[in-house]
Amino acid sequence: MLYFNCDYTEGCHPNILRRLEETNMMQTIGYGEDEICASAREKIRAACGREDIDVHFLVGGTQTNATVIAALLRSHQGALCAETGHINVHESGAVEASGHKVLALPATPDGKIDAAQVERAVLAQKNDVAFEHIVQPKLVYISQPTENGGLYSKAELTALHEVCAAHGLFLYVDGARLGYGLAAPSNDVTLADLCRLTDVFYIGGTKVGALFGEAVVFVNRKAGEDFRYHMKQRGGMLAKGRLLGIQFDELFTDGLYMKISKKAVEQALRIAAVCEQAGFPLLAKSPTNQQFVVFPDGALEELGKEYVYSYWTRVDETHSAVRLCTSWATKDENVEALCGKIRALGKAFS
Amino acid sequence: MLYFNCDYTEGCHPNILRRLEETNMMQTIGYGEDEICASAREKIRAACGREDIDVHFLVGGTQTNATVIAALLRSHQGALCAETGHINVHESGAVEASGHKVLALPATPDGKIDAAQVERAVLAQKNDVAFEHIVQPKLVYISQPTENGGLYSKAELTALHEVCAAHGLFLYVDGARLGYGLAAPSNDVTLADLCRLTDVFYIGGTKVGALFGEAVVFVNRKAGEDFRYHMKQRGGMLAKGRLLGIQFDELFTDGLYMKISKKAVEQALRIAAVCEQAGFPLLAKSPTNQQFVVFPDGALEELGKEYVYSYWTRVDETHSAVRLCTSWATKDENVEALCGKIRALGKAFS
Amino acid sequence: MLYFNCDYTEGCHPNILRRLEETNMMQTIGYGEDEICASAREKIRAACGREDIDVHFLVGGTQTNATVIAALLRSHQGALCAETGHINVHESGAVEASGHKVLALPATPDGKIDAAQVERAVLAQKNDVAFEHIVQPKLVYISQPTENGGLYSKAELTALHEVCAAHGLFLYVDGARLGYGLAAPSNDVTLADLCRLTDVFYIGGTKVGALFGEAVVFVNRKAGEDFRYHMKQRGGMLAKGRLLGIQFDELFTDGLYMKISKKAVEQALRIAAVCEQAGFPLLAKSPTNQQFVVFPDGALEELGKEYVYSYWTRVDETHSAVRLCTSWATKDENVEALCGKIRALGKAFS
Amino acid sequence: MLYFNCDYTEGCHPNILRRLEETNMMQTIGYGEDEICASAREKIRAACGREDIDVHFLVGGTQTNATVIAALLRSHQGALCAETGHINVHESGAVEASGHKVLALPATPDGKIDAAQVERAVLAQKNDVAFEHIVQPKLVYISQPTENGGLYSKAELTALHEVCAAHGLFLYVDGARLGYGLAAPSNDVTLADLCRLTDVFYIGGTKVGALFGEAVVFVNRKAGEDFRYHMKQRGGMLAKGRLLGIQFDELFTDGLYMKISKKAVEQALRIAAVCEQAGFPLLAKSPTNQQFVVFPDGALEELGKEYVYSYWTRVDETHSAVRLCTSWATKDENVEALCGKIRALGKAFS
Repeated sequence: MLYFNCDYTEGCHPNILRRLEETNMMQTIGYGEDEICASAREKIRAACGREDIDVHFLVGGTQTNATVIAALLRSHQGALCAETGHINVHESGAVEASGHKVLALPATPDGKIDAAQVERAVLAQKNDVAFEHIVQPKLVYISQPTENGGLYSKAELTALHEVCAAHGLFLYVDGARLGYGLAAPSNDVTLADLCRLTDVFYIGGTKVGALFGEAVVFVNRKAGEDFRYHMKQRGGMLAKGRLLGIQFDELFTDGLYMKISKKAVEQALRIAAVCEQAGFPLLAKSPTNQQFVVFPDGALEELGKEYVYSYWTRVDETHSAVRLCTSWATKDENVEALCGKIRALGKAFS
Repeated sequence: MLYFNCDYTEGCHPNILRRLEETNMMQTIGYGEDEICASAREKIRAACGREDIDVHFLVGGTQTNATVIAALLRSHQGALCAETGHINVHESGAVEASGHKVLALPATPDGKIDAAQVERAVLAQKNDVAFEHIVQPKLVYISQPTENGGLYSKAELTALHEVCAAHGLFLYVDGARLGYGLAAPSNDVTLADLCRLTDVFYIGGTKVGALFGEAVVFVNRKAGEDFRYHMKQRGGMLAKGRLLGIQFDELFTDGLYMKISKKAVEQALRIAAVCEQAGFPLLAKSPTNQQFVVFPDGALEELGKEYVYSYWTRVDETHSAVRLCTSWATKDENVEALCGKIRALGKAFS
Repeated sequence: MLYFNCDYTEGCHPNILRRLEETNMMQTIGYGEDEICASAREKIRAACGREDIDVHFLVGGTQTNATVIAALLRSHQGALCAETGHINVHESGAVEASGHKVLALPATPDGKIDAAQVERAVLAQKNDVAFEHIVQPKLVYISQPTENGGLYSKAELTALHEVCAAHGLFLYVDGARLGYGLAAPSNDVTLADLCRLTDVFYIGGTKVGALFGEAVVFVNRKAGEDFRYHMKQRGGMLAKGRLLGIQFDELFTDGLYMKISKKAVEQALRIAAVCEQAGFPLLAKSPTNQQFVVFPDGALEELGKEYVYSYWTRVDETHSAVRLCTSWATKDENVEALCGKIRALGKAFS
Repeated sequence: MLYFNCDYTEGCHPNILRRLEETNMMQTIGYGEDEICASAREKIRAACGREDIDVHFLVGGTQTNATVIAALLRSHQGALCAETGHINVHESGAVEASGHKVLALPATPDGKIDAAQVERAVLAQKNDVAFEHIVQPKLVYISQPTENGGLYSKAELTALHEVCAAHGLFLYVDGARLGYGLAAPSNDVTLADLCRLTDVFYIGGTKVGALFGEAVVFVNRKAGEDFRYHMKQRGGMLAKGRLLGIQFDELFTDGLYMKISKKAVEQALRIAAVCEQAGFPLLAKSPTNQQFVVFPDGALEELGKEYVYSYWTRVDETHSAVRLCTSWATKDENVEALCGKIRALGKAFS
């Protein structure tokens, strides 16, 4: 079986493994205060073009989202997000478990919300005569790229930034797949833009070359002042913190993070093109490493004999959409094999 | 100004005031373990026709909802409810503050959800390959009558009961306005039915004759075993618990609770009829003490000079819906005055 | 049986009952925004000699403590308090349920902590190399008078104020029995002092003449900015808020609050004097309405046939301490009867 | 500098690194449901001699404690533990952040509590007239070995088991350093005993050979039924779960876990013996990899020029205790160097 179901089926980029070996018997202090973490922070600051940001390393995405949101909000405040947002649907209620309501907004097919929706939600609460009986929206959570492969443009992100600034909300970007977004051909948002337009975002490692790990960037340093307490309290402060430092230090050496992201996106776009040529339409346009393709159920059954995909949603009585992912680890030969299979299915099911 | 905006604008039924005076210098133990509370519990058991239920008294509705739900759920479990449900929109995130996600379902115009929706939600989670990443629906919250004046029929309630039983969910009924529901002409659900069909429900006092107070009925006694701890922890265990006992003891003497509810509903239905006759349509049919009426904005402005209403929602560019409520305290003469005014507005704005 | 076990065995001061009746059919808006609440707030401001304070009304003490503390703290912060403090031992974990650790400090026999203890605790955390792994002390909770009858002097309170100010901690005073503290002969702390020396405190009503109710005074208005959200979220925003307004408006008319407190304290001190004369020592000196008296177990058995006391603690194999309370409602004739009984026991058990 | 301050200064045992490399490009499903995790679970079951236990893998200790405790307790219940217990002092309030009070009990110098203390605490709550106002003790948390190097004997553990069983409490053992406890010469508790005597315990990996990772063993499978939801919700479900599988699979191959633990304990005991011979007493007897040694401050200053230790506590005006740790990674040559230094200090400071 070849796995195209998600972007975390393999281990990590060989550079990281090599570095783990080289440093294995080195002695360091714990909890992310070692020199390798310091070096990784410096490289991330350099990649962002900013010296005035704080960088923290956590282990996984759900942990990062819950910790950041708990650190930013008071108990009467909630997080606006797309109804398809990860915190709303796939984190077992982690945000609510820390006491905060997720305020879900209708999303576009590719998983985005816009500034006008945010403003309407904020004003609806603010102007309600019973506003104190309603959770106060205080943070906007978006994913870049989204869970459905969508990508916010610089203009969209700027509009979100402005509405947040106007109403005193935090803007937080979940970058679990940030590399694949940055590397998308149509992308016009840089790390520097994220620093300019958000309060906090994270650079995903788990899905982009690392064994695990997410680098949280607090641009709003005041808001992140006591963040290490929250990391510890939410179980996200790794004892051997250097493991996170090692991984991000390697990913941000010689542009590795972007290089591996770019390759995965090219592979994904190739798969998408082949699907369309073969008569299998895309559920939504995605310029990233995730592709959402509609197949007749018979074709899916056939495909599933050799390829692992991620079932996404039923489209109609005889069609379903599935997710096909590439990653830093996807081999070209496997992409070719998959494309061949899809072409064959195209002929068989047209 | 005459107030028709809500059902808690006055104090309490005179019988309660009288009893407060009579018992004022009596000495009792605290926290609801006195003999007056015991008497009130007995009367509620009698009204329900059930000896095998546990009755607890709390102060207010939001407190009751948050406490019951926190007592019933484990941290990975959530509460299904109508998107218009009180816990979803008007409790400042009280349920989330105790760690639980409110799982909102689309509601009918009169604020109801049905068994099929519940089942779909339960199965969607249960059958998802990533079910452990999704909050587990474990409780269904409904209001009888709903926040929008709707009333569940015995058949609808039975269907909800069955789907809950089939999937191991608790069924919890918020009865903030239960009296007005029980007294509705079209109602076919009794207290005994509620005991048969739910795990826990509450009989609202605050809006139905009391100064304050809600009587929680645990039919599922196992689930309510440690409920008094939760009452104390959530600030709902009144030191002078007898105040709650006094109120419910009076409300459940000689059918007072039903008598005052019935009168208020009759008044509300009279107002509704006059509105329709005057050309002001109802937003949704309500057989209860709350009526939701659509007026031209000009008529509302005029009405607002003498009557306090509760603004509900914008209907179109020139019309809005408002809520008009009666209660146990509404005077017939005020109803007549309001009806006269509405008729006059009908002529002026037709 | 005559009850001396606690200070909430009766209803309320007759003035309040009268006012409830007078206002019963008056229509007001809800949630504490009515004119009676406004009047009560003004009277409390006048009693404090301060216009620049915010006053909120809640129903009970545990609710008040949990709500104030949740409103003031972020999730990595905790509340320092005496190990005998109410939040530490008698609130079913309400503070922890809102996510905060209670950091208990050893208390004096009369239930107090001092500034030096607070400073040591703060510095121990601040100076620990692993300070981020330790809950950050951010609030000091004290009760005035304490749960054990102790009273902070102005000097002690000033020292606590200074240590809190020096280290950026909030000072919060639980005044469940504040009247009885203010009225103690040895007291030198005024409401104005509390305003000068604390961030927030509450004036207890439940135990001092009201049916229920506590008036929270935010001197630190910035910290209390969004407090009404928290009140609603924690179930403490009473629908018929005017009931709280009525009670505090009456208690703060013509010095009623102080007048009834003073009488109760005099009664308690009389009981204490009689106990000592009769050979029953006090567990700790209390200048307030609560007295803690050590009796031989045989005497207690005898006493318990006619008087209800509150068992406090075992002193040795043959002696126990009990709490005897007076309140605004205690009748002089009952005090006399109790004193007579104690004298008789003194003879029998000496 | 040579590090003896803690047991997580290096990476991982070479066998794990090798396996990471071998499996790096292998494709597996995520979240711990892969075949390597399955194999590791089997090996742990075999080491425990039990087929009927559930094994889950988490990333770190604080995360594990908070997740297990949140999964086991309802909101009115708390965890009894030694006042020196990790959950009480070094987890930034993680247990409280999930809503539960840590009920601290006085500990022995080596960090233990006993069955009699537990029983007294349980009965004190149960028998209090206001028991519902007091957090219900429902779980006993102990560490084996303790944070202070103490080790529970089979008899002590059996007594704790019995008191927990008698009163319906869960017994949970934090095994962050379990290997070093199992390998202690004086130890008489086996993994099979832990299975027999506890409801749940964890086998620490982070400090015993792994890069990170703790294996939670639910003997009480009913209590652990929905544990994976809690893992996800608390951020502890690693996407590439196989990383945890790989580490425990290696640690439980050919007795590696015990072998490396044994060596570290021998080194620690050698250091302890040298300290005592050199005239530096031990703060408390520890048969494990942690040693707590009292030095004159001058000797510590000298020692600190070449060796990193963990400052523990001030003993008197001129002496302090420090912690010296060994681990699976400690080199014999470094132990020899340290022992030489201590002997030299012994001469200089006697």
